[in-house]
Amino acid sequence: MDLPVDKKKISIVCFSGDFDKIVAAFTIATGAAATNREVTMFFTFWGLNALKRNKGRAATGKSIMAKAFNFLMGGLNNLPLSRLNFGGISPKLMTGMMKKHNVATLPELVEAAHLLGVRIVACEMAMHILEIEKSEMIEEVKDVAGVATFLNESENSHIIFI
Amino acid sequence: MDLPVDKKKISIVCFSGDFDKIVAAFTIATGAAATNREVTMFFTFWGLNALKRNKGRAATGKSIMAKAFNFLMGGLNNLPLSRLNFGGISPKLMTGMMKKHNVATLPELVEAAHLLGVRIVACEMAMHILEIEKSEMIEEVKDVAGVATFLNESENSHIIFI
Amino acid sequence: MDLPVDKKKISIVCFSGDFDKIVAAFTIATGAAATNREVTMFFTFWGLNALKRNKGRAATGKSIMAKAFNFLMGGLNNLPLSRLNFGGISPKLMTGMMKKHNVATLPELVEAAHLLGVRIVACEMAMHILEIEKSEMIEEVKDVAGVATFLNESENSHIIFI
Repeated sequence: MDLPVDKKKISIVCFSGDFDKIVAAFTIATGAAATNREVTMFFTFWGLNALKRNKGRAATGKSIMAKAFNFLMGGLNNLPLSRLNFGGISPKLMTGMMKKHNVATLPELVEAAHLLGVRIVACEMAMHILEIEKSEMIEEVKDVAGVATFLNESENSHIIFI
Repeated sequence: MDLPVDKKKISIVCFSGDFDKIVAAFTIATGAAATNREVTMFFTFWGLNALKRNKGRAATGKSIMAKAFNFLMGGLNNLPLSRLNFGGISPKLMTGMMKKHNVATLPELVEAAHLLGVRIVACEMAMHILEIEKSEMIEEVKDVAGVATFLNESENSHIIFI
Repeated sequence: MDLPVDKKKISIVCFSGDFDKIVAAFTIATGAAATNREVTMFFTFWGLNALKRNKGRAATGKSIMAKAFNFLMGGLNNLPLSRLNFGGISPKLMTGMMKKHNVATLPELVEAAHLLGVRIVACEMAMHILEIEKSEMIEEVKDVAGVATFLNESENSHIIFI
């Protein structure tokens, strides 16, 4: 029953779809992977927006309700800042500040995570509720799984909920 | 001093009172409990709203300030979506989408957690500040405890802050 | 590769700059430190506002963008409540409720954390992006570090992201 946590394993639940929190999640993920840690990112609810193939707004889904939510939530290019969003201007300003200081921007962080072998998992239940199909997500999403699978695979990992 | 984390123990700090985050907390809790994990949910601050016996708005507490906060925060039926809340309509729409896809709704998740033996603990200090009495909470709240007790009991658990 | 988590070590990532979440972070930190745990708080992004020497609003930084963000974010006295902030009135009302019930206020919690030996670390990358200098932060900030250093030092700790 008792197993030690493997200091090299990190599991991040990416629940939030806020620009700043997704940046934080990918910064931890890439920093961990670059230092030889085994990293899994489990995207659920708002976090799924960071995985959509279509990075702008699109009314995907079958029901009117799902179409409305998916349109309003948008994709990687529409993630709002968690505060002081100013109608979506702030993430763009923030990206400018990141570039100015030679810090990896969000698309660069996402690409780095893929290159470094971070495992990207999408939450089955949230996809189901929001009517998001696997085909609508970036090809780096290899697995679609439920919470029980995630917990099983994270038994010896640090679990971080963002 | 060094004890391994028990892979079967999960402690969730439910700080947020957002509808979507409380759903996430109960989804993890019930998924963990259903797969034989020992789960504790420690509700504090906004999270306490999910434990109030009165599920609507009520001006409870003694001071005017506490009455105002408790009324504005409401109970399980007033939890707002963390984004795109639209004056409280979205949690209702989201519940509709959950039902449509045969996913357990929040009240069902709460009931499942109780049936599966998830331990529900309320934060003593937050209750004190917000003037919430134990008698005003659902009977499933067996313990009222402080942060030190929570940390002691979570020493060998995964700790997840939501 | 496998090391047990030391039940006495807690690492808190303070990402949020919300008044209520910073209070939660310091409550956990001081509660843990008072019960002989080794605690590190890693402040990043919005969380850095809690460490600024200037506790009010100040247009610090070199670029116009950084000046604007730092002014808008403010310091320890301007942290907003994550909900029902009412233009900044609520954190003051909440502080009144904490005093009334003899619960430590935020400045008292911060001081207690320092006295109890909680290690305060500031995130190098976030300081870089927001153009915040170490000299602009309270003297209790001993270390400025990156995410890799934080992960290395937290390998045997509970990691809590707030």
